Amino acid sequence: MKSLSSLEQMIEALRRLPGVGPKSATRMAYHLLQHDREGAQMIGQAMINGLNMIHNCGSCNTFTENTLCDTCQDSERDTSLLCVVESPSDQLMIEQTMTYKGLYFVLMGRLSPLDGVGPQDIHLDKLIRRATDGVVKEVVLATNFNNEGEATAHYISETLKVRGLHVSRLARGVPVGGELEYVDPGTIARAMLDRRNT
Amino acid sequence: MKSLSSLEQMIEALRRLPGVGPKSATRMAYHLLQHDREGAQMIGQAMINGLNMIHNCGSCNTFTENTLCDTCQDSERDTSLLCVVESPSDQLMIEQTMTYKGLYFVLMGRLSPLDGVGPQDIHLDKLIRRATDGVVKEVVLATNFNNEGEATAHYISETLKVRGLHVSRLARGVPVGGELEYVDPGTIARAMLDRRNT
Ligand SMILES: [Zn+2]
Ligand SMILES: [Zn+2]
Repeated sequence: MKSLSSLEQMIEALRRLPGVGPKSATRMAYHLLQHDREGAQMIGQAMINGLNMIHNCGSCNTFTENTLCDTCQDSERDTSLLCVVESPSDQLMIEQTMTYKGLYFVLMGRLSPLDGVGPQDIHLDKLIRRATDGVVKEVVLATNFNNEGEATAHYISETLKVRGLHVSRLARGVPVGGELEYVDPGTIARAMLDRRNT
Repeated sequence: MKSLSSLEQMIEALRRLPGVGPKSATRMAYHLLQHDREGAQMIGQAMINGLNMIHNCGSCNTFTENTLCDTCQDSERDTSLLCVVESPSDQLMIEQTMTYKGLYFVLMGRLSPLDGVGPQDIHLDKLIRRATDGVVKEVVLATNFNNEGEATAHYISETLKVRGLHVSRLARGVPVGGELEYVDPGTIARAMLDRRNT
């Protein structure tokens, strides 16, 4: 059996990236070698360095280079509120709204039984320990509003409610600025069911 | 100015890959860190190793770990024939047809004035030196049959013909197995103009 050449190793390695098949990986390797060797150097160093430096926050599970991330170390936060999100990107979106001052728990995924993603893959044990620390009073579920995100929210809700926690979910409804003509019927139906007194 | 975190460095580095924007780069970094740290290790090592080991063949310009690539070192080849291709992938396609036993020159690109890709970027000086070594008698242009590939073939053809070389181009026509009903009119027109006696 012939061992892989350095070029074949580069192409095989790039195929480990999500969404990159053999054709893209080949194109990427050729591009880096011919037109951007500095970029290849950056990628190589950033991978090795990232693996050494980055791990999961002991409290909220997001990526950090410290034992606890900056948010968990922020003494201005309301420690009675815990918001559960699927990813660091989702946490960032919520932070940018400036409407939430509690802490977070980042699942790093969502339940997807068909893909073999079960409760242990979204760190449910760690979430239960975190949410039942005696300080957290309310858990706000901010998983996505697609099928898997909803199923994940439902599962976490059932798991935490039996432990005596108050569990809430982000409201659904017509987006701000939304014109009914262009909003999908399912969203309008939900907004009708969840209508509020004015 | 705050320096980039190790995570931000990973994301910035992955953006150097062609076709990868900020969203994909972020998704890739999260995926590697959370689900495939071994893959990140492979990518890091393959990049650093590839940069050390891989360079351009002194004769045909393709990627190799030696001074001359395997094809250029193959003594069974017809040294009077030189086939010009855009990329190592294109060379591989021609090799798989088993119809060509000459040598190659790999441009590693094609002329594209709008993108700032000029003759020096496709190693035209190296090609001229290679083609005028006194051994090469015919240069077969096998650049792609799109606008940029055709323009590249035309430019190279003019450059080499004035130096007394016989220059040819892969034939165009109806693909093998092609049904006229499903072939585009431009291809049929070309096949009509290039029709051969039977
Ligand atoms: Zn944290
Ligand atoms: Zn060669």
